Amino acid sequence: MQTIQQRFQVAYEYAIFFTENLFDQNNPILKDFFGNYTEQGFQRKALVIADAGFADFHPTLANDIHAYFSNSVQHINLAPEVIVVPGGEASKNDAALFDKLCEAVDVHGIDRHSFIIGIGGGAVLDLVGYAAAVSHRGIKLIRIPTTVLSQNDSGVGVKNSINFHGKKNFLGTFAPPVAVFNDLTFLRTLDDRDWRAGIAEAIKVALIKDVSFFNWIEENALALANRDETVMAYLIHRCAQMHTDHIGGGDPFEFGSSRPLDFGHWAAHKLEYLTNFEVRHGEAVAIGIALDCVYAAKLNMLPESDLQRILEVLSQLGFDLYHPKLAENDKINLRNGLHEFREHLGGRLTIMLLEKIGKGVEVHELDADIIASAVDYLETKTINTSVLEAKI
Amino acid sequence: MQTIQQRFQVAYEYAIFFTENLFDQNNPILKDFFGNYTEQGFQRKALVIADAGFADFHPTLANDIHAYFSNSVQHINLAPEVIVVPGGEASKNDAALFDKLCEAVDVHGIDRHSFIIGIGGGAVLDLVGYAAAVSHRGIKLIRIPTTVLSQNDSGVGVKNSINFHGKKNFLGTFAPPVAVFNDLTFLRTLDDRDWRAGIAEAIKVALIKDVSFFNWIEENALALANRDETVMAYLIHRCAQMHTDHIGGGDPFEFGSSRPLDFGHWAAHKLEYLTNFEVRHGEAVAIGIALDCVYAAKLNMLPESDLQRILEVLSQLGFDLYHPKLAENDKINLRNGLHEFREHLGGRLTIMLLEKIGKGVEVHELDADIIASAVDYLETKTINTSVLEAKI
Repeated sequence: MQTIQQRFQVAYEYAIFFTENLFDQNNPILKDFFGNYTEQGFQRKALVIADAGFADFHPTLANDIHAYFSNSVQHINLAPEVIVVPGGEASKNDAALFDKLCEAVDVHGIDRHSFIIGIGGGAVLDLVGYAAAVSHRGIKLIRIPTTVLSQNDSGVGVKNSINFHGKKNFLGTFAPPVAVFNDLTFLRTLDDRDWRAGIAEAIKVALIKDVSFFNWIEENALALANRDETVMAYLIHRCAQMHTDHIGGGDPFEFGSSRPLDFGHWAAHKLEYLTNFEVRHGEAVAIGIALDCVYAAKLNMLPESDLQRILEVLSQLGFDLYHPKLAENDKINLRNGLHEFREHLGGRLTIMLLEKIGKGVEVHELDADIIASAVDYLETKTINTSVLEAKI
Repeated sequence: MQTIQQRFQVAYEYAIFFTENLFDQNNPILKDFFGNYTEQGFQRKALVIADAGFADFHPTLANDIHAYFSNSVQHINLAPEVIVVPGGEASKNDAALFDKLCEAVDVHGIDRHSFIIGIGGGAVLDLVGYAAAVSHRGIKLIRIPTTVLSQNDSGVGVKNSINFHGKKNFLGTFAPPVAVFNDLTFLRTLDDRDWRAGIAEAIKVALIKDVSFFNWIEENALALANRDETVMAYLIHRCAQMHTDHIGGGDPFEFGSSRPLDFGHWAAHKLEYLTNFEVRHGEAVAIGIALDCVYAAKLNMLPESDLQRILEVLSQLGFDLYHPKLAENDKINLRNGLHEFREHLGGRLTIMLLEKIGKGVEVHELDADIIASAVDYLETKTINTSVLEAKI
């Protein structure tokens, strides 16, 4: 019997909107979006799931959303309860939380033509996105990211995940949202660490792809550190654009093995684990970038002047460039991270390094001794800087 | 800030191979397939998960697979254990089984460039496919369906699922396999009920799309009932071809609401539940087809002569056309199934009915009284046939 060859393409499309005061009655952006879903006969519903870390700072959130829907989106049947889940990595470790969300989907009759609206930081959006993606084989997901990191990076992308028996992002899917709403005003309640952390992903994408964006970040580093909202709005927009261009132009569901956006991430993932997530993702990425840039400079791949500019920008923004866990156990713990990253990639290591600011190159091996000396370099530099600061 | 518009397409491709004695050392089909995955640097692995209902009849299965890999597929690292899971709907109800498969993925280091090979009937392939789809955001899945139903329908498609808190297929994804291997010899150990059940899906697709295929089934009904393998091989190939053509030519991931392949399925799903899955899926689909055809005839939509041909073919194949659960509780239980199907479709009911053999049409309402009288019709017809048979 002749072999049957199946071939097809699936088209995805979604918009990332930039706004302020999303749930204000006078803001038409959500109303306009739902105006695309007014076909006769359907009774579409919506379920809101919010990050406690955000909801605690916005006690009127549930009321605001209900008021907005009653006034402006009457054709969508909003579930009465706004489900609040704990924020941060903990939300992805708790299998009962995933179950609770699926239960809510069932109880509120949320079907494939209805919406789940996730509001929160990257971890909560990962959890909500996963529950949405696998319930009924995919409910329409609207993401409302509330951190710099989720507004410029994870929230505008196509991934979701939860942890499984302590394994980070072990369970997940590639499932694009139907829309993303980035509200600048939602960033006001972030603490300084979260404000800063998201900038690491912008530096990452600038370093591997766009020297002019890096120059801009360099010029605006102090304004960013001082929480200038106009400057942050530009940074988020440009980073989100580069992130979506990269996904849309390449291999969105990562069937291949090239993952340039993982620049700086192999060490970052390990450091998050080694510190039990006390070091936040963006903070870990900043250190991971610093480490891989020192590594590239030690290979004479990256010019020393570029290295110093990169470390200086990270420092100006307030990032630590070193953490004692990097050196622990004679750096073997860190080097295990490289081994795990190789496993994760299917046995063939692919690591992005910098040739110069704005240009990444992929390599397939890292030298353990040079990694160790890069760690030493950052440790020494950090001590010297501290001494210098102490003297001043 | 300007809205960012993300747009991309994802291409999928897989082959459905037809063969006999797949794991025989002299059969090159698996070896040739894995010959496509010999890139330097990767260490790809494979994990086999088999249906107990199949493995029990094939005690040398694990040995055969290991021998085949050692001789012919040395570049793929086969996990030492072949995991055996219980077959049938029970496998999809057991959350611990899903966890066990994910654990095995972790323990054996199965990554996104490695393979999970599922061997079994539709339910086990659904479970294995779901575990593969969400572990590491998608491991390459090879399906080896061992029933008529899975070889001609579910196994060649793009869905997977498990049940959640008793809700059928509540959790799942759309995730195409990388290959399907249909082995005719694997059907020999099926009992008559499972041999027959899968034919219902072939009748379904013939009825809504292809009168010539229905004519062929009609001519070959007795040969099929008598387990003629050559005839069955043709039926499976043609049904699989129609199924894949439909998926590839339409809306593979069901973003819209039209689902013609659900013909006969609204009542079938409910009947499976009402009988606690004692009536198997294909058996329930046969009854669902009969019911919706009687319904269409009562509307004068389907000619009476076509109805009689359809009921006759189903009977010749040995299908029951009626089950007492259809009438239970004054048919209210069955009619609730229609309500649930509407919910499942997002509030707008879309049901495929027949205008004539080979041509389906979609309607958006069914009349409860006519459903009830269609049930009565099938009950009466079944009693009369039994009386007739008793007399003979």
